[in-house]
Amino acid sequence: MTDFVRRVLRPEHPDWIIRSLLDVDFYKFTMGYFIWWLHRGVIVKFSLINRHVRIPLAKIIDRAELCRQLDHVRTLRFTRTDLAWLRGQDYYGANLFPDEYLAFLSELRMPPYTLRREGDQYVLAFEGPWEVVTFWETIALAIISELFFRALMQSMSEMELEALFGKAKAKLFAKLKALAAHEGIFIADFGQRRRFSFLWQRFAIAMAREVLGVHFTGSSNAWMAFNQDLPAIGTNAHELPMVLTALAPDDEKRLAQYDVLREWEELFPRGGLRIALPDTYGTRQFFERMPEDLAERVAREWRGIRLDSGDPVEEAIQYMGWLERFGVKPMRDGKIVIPSDGLDVDSMTRIDTMLGNSIAHPFGWGTKLTNDFEDCHPRHAEEAVVHGERLGLTWSEVFRGHSIVCKVAEANGKPAVKLSNNVNKATGPKDEVEKYLRIFGHKGRMLQTVEV
Amino acid sequence: MTDFVRRVLRPEHPDWIIRSLLDVDFYKFTMGYFIWWLHRGVIVKFSLINRHVRIPLAKIIDRAELCRQLDHVRTLRFTRTDLAWLRGQDYYGANLFPDEYLAFLSELRMPPYTLRREGDQYVLAFEGPWEVVTFWETIALAIISELFFRALMQSMSEMELEALFGKAKAKLFAKLKALAAHEGIFIADFGQRRRFSFLWQRFAIAMAREVLGVHFTGSSNAWMAFNQDLPAIGTNAHELPMVLTALAPDDEKRLAQYDVLREWEELFPRGGLRIALPDTYGTRQFFERMPEDLAERVAREWRGIRLDSGDPVEEAIQYMGWLERFGVKPMRDGKIVIPSDGLDVDSMTRIDTMLGNSIAHPFGWGTKLTNDFEDCHPRHAEEAVVHGERLGLTWSEVFRGHSIVCKVAEANGKPAVKLSNNVNKATGPKDEVEKYLRIFGHKGRMLQTVEV
Repeated sequence: MTDFVRRVLRPEHPDWIIRSLLDVDFYKFTMGYFIWWLHRGVIVKFSLINRHVRIPLAKIIDRAELCRQLDHVRTLRFTRTDLAWLRGQDYYGANLFPDEYLAFLSELRMPPYTLRREGDQYVLAFEGPWEVVTFWETIALAIISELFFRALMQSMSEMELEALFGKAKAKLFAKLKALAAHEGIFIADFGQRRRFSFLWQRFAIAMAREVLGVHFTGSSNAWMAFNQDLPAIGTNAHELPMVLTALAPDDEKRLAQYDVLREWEELFPRGGLRIALPDTYGTRQFFERMPEDLAERVAREWRGIRLDSGDPVEEAIQYMGWLERFGVKPMRDGKIVIPSDGLDVDSMTRIDTMLGNSIAHPFGWGTKLTNDFEDCHPRHAEEAVVHGERLGLTWSEVFRGHSIVCKVAEANGKPAVKLSNNVNKATGPKDEVEKYLRIFGHKGRMLQTVEV
Repeated sequence: MTDFVRRVLRPEHPDWIIRSLLDVDFYKFTMGYFIWWLHRGVIVKFSLINRHVRIPLAKIIDRAELCRQLDHVRTLRFTRTDLAWLRGQDYYGANLFPDEYLAFLSELRMPPYTLRREGDQYVLAFEGPWEVVTFWETIALAIISELFFRALMQSMSEMELEALFGKAKAKLFAKLKALAAHEGIFIADFGQRRRFSFLWQRFAIAMAREVLGVHFTGSSNAWMAFNQDLPAIGTNAHELPMVLTALAPDDEKRLAQYDVLREWEELFPRGGLRIALPDTYGTRQFFERMPEDLAERVAREWRGIRLDSGDPVEEAIQYMGWLERFGVKPMRDGKIVIPSDGLDVDSMTRIDTMLGNSIAHPFGWGTKLTNDFEDCHPRHAEEAVVHGERLGLTWSEVFRGHSIVCKVAEANGKPAVKLSNNVNKATGPKDEVEKYLRIFGHKGRMLQTVEV
């Protein structure tokens, strides 16, 4: 097992954060195939967004080191073994990816980025053909996150680091034990993007496997799944409806959100991959206004939905009510909901208790699995000082996962928008968000603090 | 730094607990020289005593492995470098040990032991010439302690071990930080005998050095001092008055306790080593009945006393009152008291607050420095099961330092007795203890729980 303290004190040179192009969320491959097959050549722009503006990323992360890490990713290629592993995936059914797509991957090089500083934040963007740019999302986020924590640890002594990692290990173990006590809880790792580090994610997964046993069901990260012999988990994300809706004329936007589902059905006849993500423009309108022919199929043939904003119990109950209209019984018919929004022990326990045996609810556990160091810093109540600068925040406030995302911002020059069930999770230019709200309505949207 | 988890899961073979004859308390050399010079050839017997009888040592520690570890110690010799280091010690003044004693050490082989099981305890004894048998004390205890914890860890999984050591590291760090906040606190490691393990003692010392800085003043263990470039600390222990008093006829016993001091003065003219240990037969009678000529010198010329039983603040105040009778002012005249009995953060903080600047009070911190895993076991509230047997105790109750000592029991066939200020710390056959109480009196003795 990794000696975390030694790795901080005597880092390997070069200490690459991304060691393999497989170190990316698996849904990038399922979505990537979808994009490559049906929307190849759409020019998109992904942008980094730090929702926790109090955290001055540009003061903390060295620009040259950030470039070095990003540049390194551009030197990586999928290896023969990577492609064999992808070709061999059968968790969602065999022959997921056609040879043509794997051939495309074998040639893939990560496209360039643009980086500038604006105040204390970085403006980091990736522009180019959607089918390649899409891969940057979780890779860029993982780099930002790890560089952030590496910088925070620079002022720590050997024994402070021993105390830090010691406490974090004991804390994670205690959380996993608490979860293991709940028989109904099944969890997959969804934590690459805001992980403390590559090695810590690996450790957290190993610990989760041991403590949760069969209740730990896989990882959303392809490298971690590959390396730790787990199912690779993941289907699709907001970028699909965001791009398709951005490209549609305004009067077709409302229906464009459903194009993703129709097209997805074409590519993935398997139930397992048919997980809808209804909250891009609000879950209420998504179900209420879904065309009847599609609704019938989504209710009957799709496996379930991912719950990425709003109250997950509320959302699950609404979904079950909707299923009932089609005579679908969640348990009998094998439906699932996948809560994946800012989860931790308390929320998972609550959701599991509330949902009980009404519907299967495997969790996608992210940041608080792969990066829960809150209060583990041995000087957690003191003011954080990084590179000699006082941050006006305690170590506790700084030394935690932050709500940083990398979202599609434009498609063929048109602004991309996400509304979400949570007003604080909306992305896009203000006037565009307002236009989208006129199109999709406000129904069911709420204000929630975005923790991570 | 050691990967503690790996060392448990994949122990080195052979994984010797005692790697060097220097891995022994330094006072064994100062006492050893005293014994060799003045009392060579007295036949003594040291015996293991487990005061925590609820802990079934013989159920937990494998007999064959215990023999293997003890036998290994008998193959060890002092090396040229060990002897050079001993010869070069100057913390208590240069030329501490004459060449003749070092020549004796160069030939020293650890004498045999006898081991049998009695119920759930081991009867482990060492018999032979005092000048060699004396070295077994802290060595035997360290072997017992480490084998005990190795056995307890056998049923732990990798991640349980990660959590165990993680928590123990964070806990020790927090304790050291709390101590570092008290400027008056100076601490030396006195923790070999009941250490969790050799490697953990080394780790604890390294952490203490970093956190306490110059407030961490040394180690009682010669190997640790040698290895970590610290002063080796230690002067003398109860065995000296115990043997000398055992050998004296009953009507000379009361005065025999003072022979140690007179003889010690002969050998060690330096003040630093002149630390009296007054509690062997009760501190009150020790000072009250001390012959005037000796008392004058002990008050004026001796550096101070070690407080190994009774309330340390009370004992220190009594000592200062006694010094006053001789016109000695503790601070002006550089006197010290060394509390060394079952210390932890709260007791050291209390003692430091109470004694303040009235007298220097460097602490000898033992078990709770080198072996504080209480509540760190991830199943600490569950019943402990060792080698498949339920112990009727929680892991918390088992997984801690226990009050196990290795005391001189006989000298030239006569029983050796210790009364102590704490009735629970008395050793020796019941009728002998009663006889000694008639000789020395009960004054100032109290009942205290023996934690470690």
